[in-house]
Amino acid sequence: MTGTRERILDATAELFRIRGYCATGMKQVVARAEAPFGSVYHFFPGGKEQLAAESIERAGRHYHDLVLAVFDAEPDVIAGTRAVFDGAGEVLRTSGYADACPIATVALEVASTSEPLRHASDRVFESWLASLRARLVAAGVDAATARSVAISVVALLEGAFLLSRTARTTEAMAATGDAAVALVEAALAG
Amino acid sequence: MTGTRERILDATAELFRIRGYCATGMKQVVARAEAPFGSVYHFFPGGKEQLAAESIERAGRHYHDLVLAVFDAEPDVIAGTRAVFDGAGEVLRTSGYADACPIATVALEVASTSEPLRHASDRVFESWLASLRARLVAAGVDAATARSVAISVVALLEGAFLLSRTARTTEAMAATGDAAVALVEAALAG
Repeated sequence: MTGTRERILDATAELFRIRGYCATGMKQVVARAEAPFGSVYHFFPGGKEQLAAESIERAGRHYHDLVLAVFDAEPDVIAGTRAVFDGAGEVLRTSGYADACPIATVALEVASTSEPLRHASDRVFESWLASLRARLVAAGVDAATARSVAISVVALLEGAFLLSRTARTTEAMAATGDAAVALVEAALAG
Repeated sequence: MTGTRERILDATAELFRIRGYCATGMKQVVARAEAPFGSVYHFFPGGKEQLAAESIERAGRHYHDLVLAVFDAEPDVIAGTRAVFDGAGEVLRTSGYADACPIATVALEVASTSEPLRHASDRVFESWLASLRARLVAAGVDAATARSVAISVVALLEGAFLLSRTARTTEAMAATGDAAVALVEAALAG
């Protein structure tokens, strides 16, 4: 069984993804983690903000690895891009539109109110951008264009999570998947 | 001076934009609105959820009108698209990265927990998509493509708000502005 500390971090990440930072209480976290109440302050003496910062980084790393595994299973960056958007749409549908970006809600909630959590979110997004950019560069896209396209692909995915969760349809994920593929194709054609 | 009811709605919208739904308390709302505490329950007997639903729709309408005024001041849909992203970047910079989408934070917070607020958010996004789609159709884009491009342009803008607020730079707004213009150009050429 996973250690208590990891269970607390995973429970936090799950609640953040569904309802965000503010609406996630420490009592809900320990209940979901099946951990004694005191353990959260034992492992995270800095309280909710410390727990949140570590949870954002852990969830961001997990999502990075998951998405890149989907991307890298395809023969090229065009098919990889398509697979990520198709996969995100499928996960939205099968999770009742709950399972989307693990950190977007929290990132928007805290951007103007918590510098530690804003920095944690920024590090996550930068890690995603760096990995996507590296794959575009390896496929022959010049470095500046690769950075710009990586930003737009991540923005399309994040915008589609917002629109799809709000509408409870995958229409936005399908439309943005087409747009992301078109941007990657144009960058390759250079 | 604006009526108390409108001041309460505007104060709510401002707090939602900066910190979201959950972190916005009724006491902060009445303080910012310079309204007596009881007035919020007088005007919104349904409490915070009713206030939020009306605030989302009002803020969404204001932002719709503001963005479309920027768009329509340009000679064509390409220049209009560019102007919206440039303007959004400028507002982010001058507001200390606080002034972004008025409803995205709330929409993500409530998507899985409040059907009335999810519906209110959905109506706002649909109104933005309908107006952008109509402009693309008037410029000669076929109806299905126009809907798809409108979704991608709004997704790019929303994703850029998230990345720009988190990084406290306008790099993402500039990159997505280029991508949005490229998508509109391709649709016009198509």
